Amino acid sequence: MIEPRTLKGFRDHLPAQALAREQVLDTARRVYRSYGFTPIDTPALEYLEILTGKGSEETDKQLYRFQDHGGRDVGLRFDLTVPFARFAAQHVHDLGLPFKRYHMATVWRGENTQRGRYREFMQCDFDTIGTMSPVADLEMVLVVHDLLAAIGLERFTIRVNDRRVLAGILERLGLADRSSGVLRSLDKLGKATPEAVAAELAGQGVTPEAVTSLLEMARLAGPAAEVLARLRSLAGDAVQGAEGIAALESLVAGARAAGVPEERLVVDPSIARGLDYYTGIVLESFLDELPGLGSICSGGRYDNLAGLYTKQPLPGVGASLGIDRLLAGLEELGRLSKVETPADVFLVHFDTAHLADYLRIASALRADGAAVEFFPEPKKVGQQLKLAAKRGFPTALVIGSDEFAAGTAQFKDMAAQTSTTIDWHGDLPVLVDAVHSLLAGIRHSP
Amino acid sequence: MIEPRTLKGFRDHLPAQALAREQVLDTARRVYRSYGFTPIDTPALEYLEILTGKGSEETDKQLYRFQDHGGRDVGLRFDLTVPFARFAAQHVHDLGLPFKRYHMATVWRGENTQRGRYREFMQCDFDTIGTMSPVADLEMVLVVHDLLAAIGLERFTIRVNDRRVLAGILERLGLADRSSGVLRSLDKLGKATPEAVAAELAGQGVTPEAVTSLLEMARLAGPAAEVLARLRSLAGDAVQGAEGIAALESLVAGARAAGVPEERLVVDPSIARGLDYYTGIVLESFLDELPGLGSICSGGRYDNLAGLYTKQPLPGVGASLGIDRLLAGLEELGRLSKVETPADVFLVHFDTAHLADYLRIASALRADGAAVEFFPEPKKVGQQLKLAAKRGFPTALVIGSDEFAAGTAQFKDMAAQTSTTIDWHGDLPVLVDAVHSLLAGIRHSP
Repeated sequence: MIEPRTLKGFRDHLPAQALAREQVLDTARRVYRSYGFTPIDTPALEYLEILTGKGSEETDKQLYRFQDHGGRDVGLRFDLTVPFARFAAQHVHDLGLPFKRYHMATVWRGENTQRGRYREFMQCDFDTIGTMSPVADLEMVLVVHDLLAAIGLERFTIRVNDRRVLAGILERLGLADRSSGVLRSLDKLGKATPEAVAAELAGQGVTPEAVTSLLEMARLAGPAAEVLARLRSLAGDAVQGAEGIAALESLVAGARAAGVPEERLVVDPSIARGLDYYTGIVLESFLDELPGLGSICSGGRYDNLAGLYTKQPLPGVGASLGIDRLLAGLEELGRLSKVETPADVFLVHFDTAHLADYLRIASALRADGAAVEFFPEPKKVGQQLKLAAKRGFPTALVIGSDEFAAGTAQFKDMAAQTSTTIDWHGDLPVLVDAVHSLLAGIRHSP
Repeated sequence: MIEPRTLKGFRDHLPAQALAREQVLDTARRVYRSYGFTPIDTPALEYLEILTGKGSEETDKQLYRFQDHGGRDVGLRFDLTVPFARFAAQHVHDLGLPFKRYHMATVWRGENTQRGRYREFMQCDFDTIGTMSPVADLEMVLVVHDLLAAIGLERFTIRVNDRRVLAGILERLGLADRSSGVLRSLDKLGKATPEAVAAELAGQGVTPEAVTSLLEMARLAGPAAEVLARLRSLAGDAVQGAEGIAALESLVAGARAAGVPEERLVVDPSIARGLDYYTGIVLESFLDELPGLGSICSGGRYDNLAGLYTKQPLPGVGASLGIDRLLAGLEELGRLSKVETPADVFLVHFDTAHLADYLRIASALRADGAAVEFFPEPKKVGQQLKLAAKRGFPTALVIGSDEFAAGTAQFKDMAAQTSTTIDWHGDLPVLVDAVHSLLAGIRHSP
């Protein structure tokens, strides 16, 4: 006998979890599509040189790698950006530019599971490549906003910054040559205390005055116009800084014009994003009720996606929904459904003598758009209804021999624990209409 | 510079392919859910012992296997059945029985690519476990029927048989101890000639008379009642055979009651399924126009899913949609869309001075349910429309400075190459309504 178990850092998705994830994925797909982003897919396995080409030292270390049957060095993708870079370089002539894609797929990282991380998780990315237009940056903000709203979230904040503002300020503080390390330290704000970040900056040789300026900058908050005015004075006459500030101004104005509520989009100079490849707008988004959860949707603009694979410059902008973190957040907020079935109606199997009737009824209800589970065995009705309740079916339909004789049916609202008698006189369309109306009533009740 | 390329046997999905696949997956999900099948997911990587436990010698050889960072022997799943067996054994107490799940996910096999096979492909399985009820067998047939019909296929045939009928006939021919090999040979009918199969059977020591009987059996065709009568005489008084014939009879009757057209479900004694674990009903399905394509949806009943992992018997029945083969078939039939975008409307970017207007218009159309791509750059209108046409956008909306001044818009039907002027007088709801009606007209035109 082999012990049934999963690998450390890997997990099964049981029905309630899998249903919740499918719902979020559906929503993301719908929102991405509503802006014209189109799906693509790439293999889970790539030549190792593709994957090690672009990742950081950390992702290289975490890479699942091996030799395949042909002796080739291969690896499992650790994100969707590197495969997209390879894909874009390979297919750009077929795709045309600008090109907008979404990609929702599994990635693997041999992370330290003690940090509560999984080694297999999904990413849901969308990117526009081949244009420098600020409209694409603005669209990223709109997609993130529509996505979080469509998921049903109300209290969330999208925090934006521009790498050029940071670069301008660093230039003015004489830290341009140390920007990578300084940005990585600043990115820890929120997770680490300001004192710890200050110490880390000092360790990199940043002067006490510069540390004070940097922390003052990162602390800036309030209405976008005020934050931008303060940034303007901090960045002074640095050209990059002025460009970044102008970009943020136009981004905020565009989002307002497109109907994004003011409180949901803030300019936050502490947003740096740890990754080196961002060059313009950067974005993170947070659930207001769970600030400690971290960003659930992050992204930004980069100058060149695929420089390792092609000479054609492919600037772009995009973001990624952290679906596992989002689902963890929804669970913590008690907003994750525990329902284990996608069906609307549990049809009780009372008497196999009526099998053909049950089949016709189930089939007619399905043709009307309802999802119907017909129990396969004529077990005791109580037992069947108990299982239906445990699995979270919203309704059950009981038609026993007596009901068939009388031309009636019992429609049960499982949550309200009420039962309605339907008089259908053996006329199937009458039964279908009645169930249709009753289901509509239940779907619309709170 | 690293050459951008994919591994042999692996492939990218470009937008048109990815959209077609998403559509079929959506359809499968909707049909599976309409019968109450619920989603689950399992890791791509499993302990090697889980995967090598259940596969055949061939799948063992094709397995992608390696040692992970912790020195564990691991492998990539080669199907969804073995992981489901492990999953069911591990979680059966949480799940309850009977349990109905679907699972749509990627699997990997290091196959010989010269046979035109891919090393990475998707499977779309559904199974009911924990019940011996023939209702579950019947439901498998209904799901397969509804699925193929929902995909838009009209001419397809579901071919069913019962392993017990084959076993009864083999018993009667004195071949019970050689059934595995004989069934595997019979399963090649359709791909190999009857003569080749006869030779293979003779090589296994089957007598010429028995070979004749087996090939006669496999050739049986016609109305289900006639085929079943002939099978009855071939199986004689073998108990298993009688059980199988009765099961097929009730399956055919049930499918008729549920509305499956007679010509779409035939009893075909040549269907054996190569796999050892089937014990009852077996099923394959074919596109009538492409008999050489092979079965696009196959399955059957098995006695015990998870015997390697638990002592609890878990009988079940289920099938798997071969989505890659189906898509290849649809392409061969010229029924695969070449459209590269999920969007309904291409909104031309005429003049950035009207950016706020474009954003408001796009946002209002999206709120009305349309998917709208707004081009990020004010390129020449002709260039924008050329890209829209190449990508297969069904419609485009052109509102330039003159149109804004006049309160009009040009709505273009890209396929018909016609243009309709909308008079919206700058009143956004009027524009949204007009586009809504025009889109509905295009969606319903042939």
